[in-house]
Amino acid sequence: MGLIIKGGEVVNASEQFMADVRIEGGSITAIGATLDPASGDETIDASGKLLLPGFIDPHVHMELPFMGTVSADDFESGTASGIAGGTTCIIDFCIPAPGESLLAALETWKGRAAKAVTDYTFHMAITSWGPNTAAEMQQVVEKHGITSFKVFMAYKGAIMVDDGALYSVMKEAAKLGAVVTVHAENGDAVYHLQRELLAAGCTGPEYHPVSRPSAVEGEATERALMMARLHGATPYIVHMTCKESMHALERAKLAGQPCYGETCPQYLLLDDTVFIKPDFGGSAFVMSPPIRPGHVGHHDALWAGITNGMLDSVGTDHCPFLHEQKKMGVGDFTKIPNGAAGIEDRLVLMHTHGVATGRISLQRMVELGSANPARIFGLTKKGSVAVGMDADLVVFDAKAKGTLSAKTHHSRADRSIFEGHAITGRIASTIVAGRVVYDGSKLMTTRGSGRFIARKATHHAHHAEVKL
Amino acid sequence: MGLIIKGGEVVNASEQFMADVRIEGGSITAIGATLDPASGDETIDASGKLLLPGFIDPHVHMELPFMGTVSADDFESGTASGIAGGTTCIIDFCIPAPGESLLAALETWKGRAAKAVTDYTFHMAITSWGPNTAAEMQQVVEKHGITSFKVFMAYKGAIMVDDGALYSVMKEAAKLGAVVTVHAENGDAVYHLQRELLAAGCTGPEYHPVSRPSAVEGEATERALMMARLHGATPYIVHMTCKESMHALERAKLAGQPCYGETCPQYLLLDDTVFIKPDFGGSAFVMSPPIRPGHVGHHDALWAGITNGMLDSVGTDHCPFLHEQKKMGVGDFTKIPNGAAGIEDRLVLMHTHGVATGRISLQRMVELGSANPARIFGLTKKGSVAVGMDADLVVFDAKAKGTLSAKTHHSRADRSIFEGHAITGRIASTIVAGRVVYDGSKLMTTRGSGRFIARKATHHAHHAEVKL
Amino acid sequence: MGLIIKGGEVVNASEQFMADVRIEGGSITAIGATLDPASGDETIDASGKLLLPGFIDPHVHMELPFMGTVSADDFESGTASGIAGGTTCIIDFCIPAPGESLLAALETWKGRAAKAVTDYTFHMAITSWGPNTAAEMQQVVEKHGITSFKVFMAYKGAIMVDDGALYSVMKEAAKLGAVVTVHAENGDAVYHLQRELLAAGCTGPEYHPVSRPSAVEGEATERALMMARLHGATPYIVHMTCKESMHALERAKLAGQPCYGETCPQYLLLDDTVFIKPDFGGSAFVMSPPIRPGHVGHHDALWAGITNGMLDSVGTDHCPFLHEQKKMGVGDFTKIPNGAAGIEDRLVLMHTHGVATGRISLQRMVELGSANPARIFGLTKKGSVAVGMDADLVVFDAKAKGTLSAKTHHSRADRSIFEGHAITGRIASTIVAGRVVYDGSKLMTTRGSGRFIARKATHHAHHAEVKL
Amino acid sequence: MGLIIKGGEVVNASEQFMADVRIEGGSITAIGATLDPASGDETIDASGKLLLPGFIDPHVHMELPFMGTVSADDFESGTASGIAGGTTCIIDFCIPAPGESLLAALETWKGRAAKAVTDYTFHMAITSWGPNTAAEMQQVVEKHGITSFKVFMAYKGAIMVDDGALYSVMKEAAKLGAVVTVHAENGDAVYHLQRELLAAGCTGPEYHPVSRPSAVEGEATERALMMARLHGATPYIVHMTCKESMHALERAKLAGQPCYGETCPQYLLLDDTVFIKPDFGGSAFVMSPPIRPGHVGHHDALWAGITNGMLDSVGTDHCPFLHEQKKMGVGDFTKIPNGAAGIEDRLVLMHTHGVATGRISLQRMVELGSANPARIFGLTKKGSVAVGMDADLVVFDAKAKGTLSAKTHHSRADRSIFEGHAITGRIASTIVAGRVVYDGSKLMTTRGSGRFIARKATHHAHHAEVKL
Repeated sequence: MGLIIKGGEVVNASEQFMADVRIEGGSITAIGATLDPASGDETIDASGKLLLPGFIDPHVHMELPFMGTVSADDFESGTASGIAGGTTCIIDFCIPAPGESLLAALETWKGRAAKAVTDYTFHMAITSWGPNTAAEMQQVVEKHGITSFKVFMAYKGAIMVDDGALYSVMKEAAKLGAVVTVHAENGDAVYHLQRELLAAGCTGPEYHPVSRPSAVEGEATERALMMARLHGATPYIVHMTCKESMHALERAKLAGQPCYGETCPQYLLLDDTVFIKPDFGGSAFVMSPPIRPGHVGHHDALWAGITNGMLDSVGTDHCPFLHEQKKMGVGDFTKIPNGAAGIEDRLVLMHTHGVATGRISLQRMVELGSANPARIFGLTKKGSVAVGMDADLVVFDAKAKGTLSAKTHHSRADRSIFEGHAITGRIASTIVAGRVVYDGSKLMTTRGSGRFIARKATHHAHHAEVKL
Repeated sequence: MGLIIKGGEVVNASEQFMADVRIEGGSITAIGATLDPASGDETIDASGKLLLPGFIDPHVHMELPFMGTVSADDFESGTASGIAGGTTCIIDFCIPAPGESLLAALETWKGRAAKAVTDYTFHMAITSWGPNTAAEMQQVVEKHGITSFKVFMAYKGAIMVDDGALYSVMKEAAKLGAVVTVHAENGDAVYHLQRELLAAGCTGPEYHPVSRPSAVEGEATERALMMARLHGATPYIVHMTCKESMHALERAKLAGQPCYGETCPQYLLLDDTVFIKPDFGGSAFVMSPPIRPGHVGHHDALWAGITNGMLDSVGTDHCPFLHEQKKMGVGDFTKIPNGAAGIEDRLVLMHTHGVATGRISLQRMVELGSANPARIFGLTKKGSVAVGMDADLVVFDAKAKGTLSAKTHHSRADRSIFEGHAITGRIASTIVAGRVVYDGSKLMTTRGSGRFIARKATHHAHHAEVKL
Repeated sequence: MGLIIKGGEVVNASEQFMADVRIEGGSITAIGATLDPASGDETIDASGKLLLPGFIDPHVHMELPFMGTVSADDFESGTASGIAGGTTCIIDFCIPAPGESLLAALETWKGRAAKAVTDYTFHMAITSWGPNTAAEMQQVVEKHGITSFKVFMAYKGAIMVDDGALYSVMKEAAKLGAVVTVHAENGDAVYHLQRELLAAGCTGPEYHPVSRPSAVEGEATERALMMARLHGATPYIVHMTCKESMHALERAKLAGQPCYGETCPQYLLLDDTVFIKPDFGGSAFVMSPPIRPGHVGHHDALWAGITNGMLDSVGTDHCPFLHEQKKMGVGDFTKIPNGAAGIEDRLVLMHTHGVATGRISLQRMVELGSANPARIFGLTKKGSVAVGMDADLVVFDAKAKGTLSAKTHHSRADRSIFEGHAITGRIASTIVAGRVVYDGSKLMTTRGSGRFIARKATHHAHHAEVKL
Repeated sequence: MGLIIKGGEVVNASEQFMADVRIEGGSITAIGATLDPASGDETIDASGKLLLPGFIDPHVHMELPFMGTVSADDFESGTASGIAGGTTCIIDFCIPAPGESLLAALETWKGRAAKAVTDYTFHMAITSWGPNTAAEMQQVVEKHGITSFKVFMAYKGAIMVDDGALYSVMKEAAKLGAVVTVHAENGDAVYHLQRELLAAGCTGPEYHPVSRPSAVEGEATERALMMARLHGATPYIVHMTCKESMHALERAKLAGQPCYGETCPQYLLLDDTVFIKPDFGGSAFVMSPPIRPGHVGHHDALWAGITNGMLDSVGTDHCPFLHEQKKMGVGDFTKIPNGAAGIEDRLVLMHTHGVATGRISLQRMVELGSANPARIFGLTKKGSVAVGMDADLVVFDAKAKGTLSAKTHHSRADRSIFEGHAITGRIASTIVAGRVVYDGSKLMTTRGSGRFIARKATHHAHHAEVKL
């Protein structure tokens, strides 16, 4: 009744070894030089292939109501797309409307997520501060096992928090031992730049990056880190894109502040030439923060963080919108729904551009895509091929060659921002909770089979700057 | 009918030489190895003494309505106190109430300043942003010759600007070529920390610095510099007190951003042990940003800026309140009027702790206290002992010893934050507009003899980060 | 015929889990939720305890002829002392005399090391550059499996290399894919400072640190990193002690240079007050670089590197001399043999001051003390509790309390630089090559049972600064 | 018998004003709004023009025996070329052969310099360290008024010092209060790179920069600064060319170390494309350190230093060799005599690229080219248009346009590295010691009219790192 994966080379974040792996009841029960199948056991042959812990995407938005529409993947199609890309667990964002109860929003999101085909959890966004917010944060953490929050320093007039709310979120999170994930852009500056560009007749998608220069991301990163420092909160800066922001994070880490940074493949691999395309094609690449200009150091700064450890994880910010949805912003780039698909491409892109180029080791790839998201966000049964861990695994063929395309991916997105990219490496099969749910070409998922994972908060304040 | 100062050693920011100086009609008309008096000329013997350009205080608040009271020196007593300390020109701050017309406020301030006994000008504070603000800024610069603005990033609920207003001030100032002076503290964080301290029963003046940690100053400095960068404005960070803020300024300067930094003697010379005194005595030292803890690098960072050029000027933030006024904050440190006297002590303190200790040269002292404020703020006829310049001069006895005290100073302040400090150097006489108005012991000023100085804006944007 | 360790909590650098571990033939053959002993298997009960991969000490000197004497531990006593401290593999330094053949020296060192009771390998020191050095380096790497070199930038007149030799070692190592370990101090400056101190009558051990200020370490670190950069060599800076050196390493890493840094417990935990002791007692602490002054940032900089990842490993520089030997330097501190014992204390000190204080996790402790030394230096079968790895393991009782003392340690050193230090955690047993060789009180080692480990070079140049 | 310059606008480093200037006996005797000529006075009309203090070139090599030949300008033609370019005082380098007495070399250099047509002094190079060197250094400073030294960290096998000599020079200079000027390149690395390039058949002038990468300059700068810090010497890094070196200087200054940096116009304005020219034309640009690649940040780093104050002066390293001399290096770039002409172009290039582009003010130009060299090197009667100063002046026409060419310059150099460069600004006339010696087209110099200027040492150690 078990499953044995035979002959693969296990790659964990800190070791690599040849072994057979036995799975039973959804968990890894044994790892051995040679494991003999018991009666009733199935076996998979992984010889010549790598066996990785299932990847965890710490940054996705499934069926998100946003900018007047809803992101194109629901929790089923989105997590299925993840499986085809080697991702076996997601952390989505529960985003209450300003003023809405966190607990009510959580119910809504849990309802949507129930159809997921991988395990999942949420970061809880705080989009306004009210008299009950602190108490609800406590319930969210202690009763619901949601141990990470999210603040948006951008999207003025919608879900942006002001500095007062930012302060309060950091303070309460520090008390609770929860991580605070941060979208770091100065929303006021962006708002004014958008207005000025539109007033100047600059309405196309190519003005999206102009309206959100890297300086506003760097500033907001610095501010979030400072606010975290005051009461000793642990911040995690999501989707970092630029040198200014990296330098702020580096300074904080070098000074001993506990903090984390995440980037996404699109910021490592694309540059702002993507916005110049016929037929409103640049709109596919509109997301915030924007994809940056090349040749001015942003990409180098991010890659340095990937290699030297200053960056802790690679997420995707998976949030696709169809071309039809993107067209809401024809004539006004500020109305283009922000986001693109990515969950299916992350592992192979990291392998292609990180490992195959010699920039990072396989172990570091696993650390960035699986072990660190698990460790930072308290997914204690994930992130490693080890006894007792959830049996979420990827059999990876490191030598296969291929090409990315919206035609072949499993997301509902009708375009891929990596259309035509050549890649090295291929998901040979994906195992979720001990079941083979993808065999390299076919998905065999069961709607609703994913579980909500409750977590424990462990990031209690050790370093408060202010002594009250 | 002229005046000849004979035998002194002139100290300018970039040279030092023995010469006679002839003054006529309020200006310096000749400098010579030996100048013979014409008929009717008076002479002053400055042999054995230094002859300095009159110092300029770029940061004072005379008769300022603030925190429910009014600062204790009016424009007459305050400028007279300056004269006794070697300061012959001030830049005060015109601070409209939020929503008030800049032009109306300027009239009010000009009315108050009419009794000044030295020349003066204003920085125009922007305390809110309205539909007429941009147009009024233009008038203030182009019609009234006020070429520097001020924003407060602190004092939430009173004169603090939000990031939208900060953005707009920087943008308009860049167009106008005006400097933007900035009080850099994160007012939201301060507001919350104040509330928390009071709620915890921490009400004495010693909690004032706790409520405004250096991290909030560093953050705001970074943010102001970024906002200036967007459209190429020239920021001038006032009263810098800490390493975080210095490091932000250093990074900006090293990256080539045009920007300026100012500190004040109290931040160089005092530490937070001053707050622990009997009889509410710590209240005398309450100002914002606060005097910082010693031994953690703040003072070293400021002194390094004084010696290596990263700091551009030394002002005073002269804004005294009487002990009786300070008592408004008994039981609630947030109600203690913020400010202290300083205009009379600046030059001798810089000489004592900068020059006499070997940290800086006399020339650098003149640069920080006179030449740079003149250059940065467009006081083209001041800041140097040179032909054609206004005849504002200080005869300085560098060897004299003395002691600072509220008993002997000329401000109306009833306490001195430098009470009992031993000093080296003494103002032997002060000349304003060619007239000896202080002879080292007696003031001979004439109420209202100071002039408003209109300036020209020259800091036009060269380095905008955003290309619209 | 196997051994099963039951019920322990395995701690690897990237995961932590409850499991039984089976060992056979010197290797780990299986890890399982529950492993049933086969016939003939022994078992050890590790319940309530941690099971760690045996620690690797990347920096020791056994029976080293140095400064006119020989270090007090030979390979047997030194590796036995390591076993009692949880260290199951060492990397010693083979140090040819200037001009001596590398291969000849290797024979000598292999002869000495044959009595070791743990596995071992060597870094090969290059102490001079001759016509055969490059060819011998190639043989050392390719034929002998010694894939790391060592250069001393200090010890002028003895084993110090000049910049020409440093350049050549880096260049050849880059070609060979070998790591270059570096003792970074400017030996010329040290030489002159020593002469001046002695000439001034400053002869006691307390002048040892004065003769080697942190500035000379920082400079040499910068220089070594530059030399490595030219041809793309991979440097590993040993025994880092100070902020200057850390900052140089940080800059290099942030700029993307592949490089590594090591510190030792004594630099993290002791300060220069240790040198002032009666009866020449300060001599026990004389090593190079020296233990640094407290309160000036050195210790903070090192601890930040421990927590933020800028430091890669913790070694010991184990190199004890008896008090009688140290007395060679009475009246002339430059003649005190440099070194102290440390191999037995590393793990418990890291646990006590790192883990128990909350600074680092157990996983990070294992990374610094075992996984990283294994990874960096190519010990591919060590550093992790995983199937296929060498069965070098430590059963660790994290809650036990104790005290360090020369009276109880197993080194031949007659003094401990940590005498009387309270510690948290205790080695319950140590397993080497599948055999229990220490049971927490008694050593059961067999002289000569350790093996020389040949390694493969993998650090081939990717980043040469110079393109020839 | 005096000379009055009427109607010019005086530009000093810290002020700018309209005035007449009277000269008598070689000095400035009066500056006035209007000065009436006394009987016998001559007048020059400077209306519409600027009146600058004569520029001081702190870095030139006249008739230098170097690399088997002698630089093409002697002290007469070189200083005359300076006059035509607005330079009225030079600091040359007295360079003893290794082992030669400093005093003997000084005699030789004084003999050569006797034909100069402007005032001059020397930096004394220390090219080796012997038993008499310290004593001779003292005599050089105290008896001969040579208060600055020079060390070469490059030119291995010729005039390069090793770290022992570098240490000793810094230590003695600190005692004497003398500045130590430093050529900062790691000469060992350069030596090896040269050998490797030649061995690889890379022999043309385009390999000169490859043999001296910016990393070796950055390293040596760091090392020199450290050596200065030990005993509190004041270093002055000459001809800085790159970001690595700038960053080292910036770090030192920000940390409070007294130190100075110089660059030259060629490093600000040219890039390494100059080396690719027909007919061995690239050889004209061969100097050390080399002209750097563009687009990698070196030029930006230098310009930032020009604007933000991190650089203190602009020299030229004037050291021309004729094309015939350069040909000594055909087939071996290491034999190309290093150097080019520059003294005649400095002021107009700084005006064209600094002032006319808006990067710096006229005052900053004067500071970099005159006031700072005077201040740093103790030329107390130079660097400013002020009473009592030497009457070395430049009447400058800021609006004139022109073109630089070897055909029109007054140096003996047969090529110009700025051939054909368009320039803004023109020397209308140059006055040396009160005499007009250049009228914008014609030189009217008198061989040997220049004087040796003895100086006083003032840079006594305040900041020694080592306390003996």
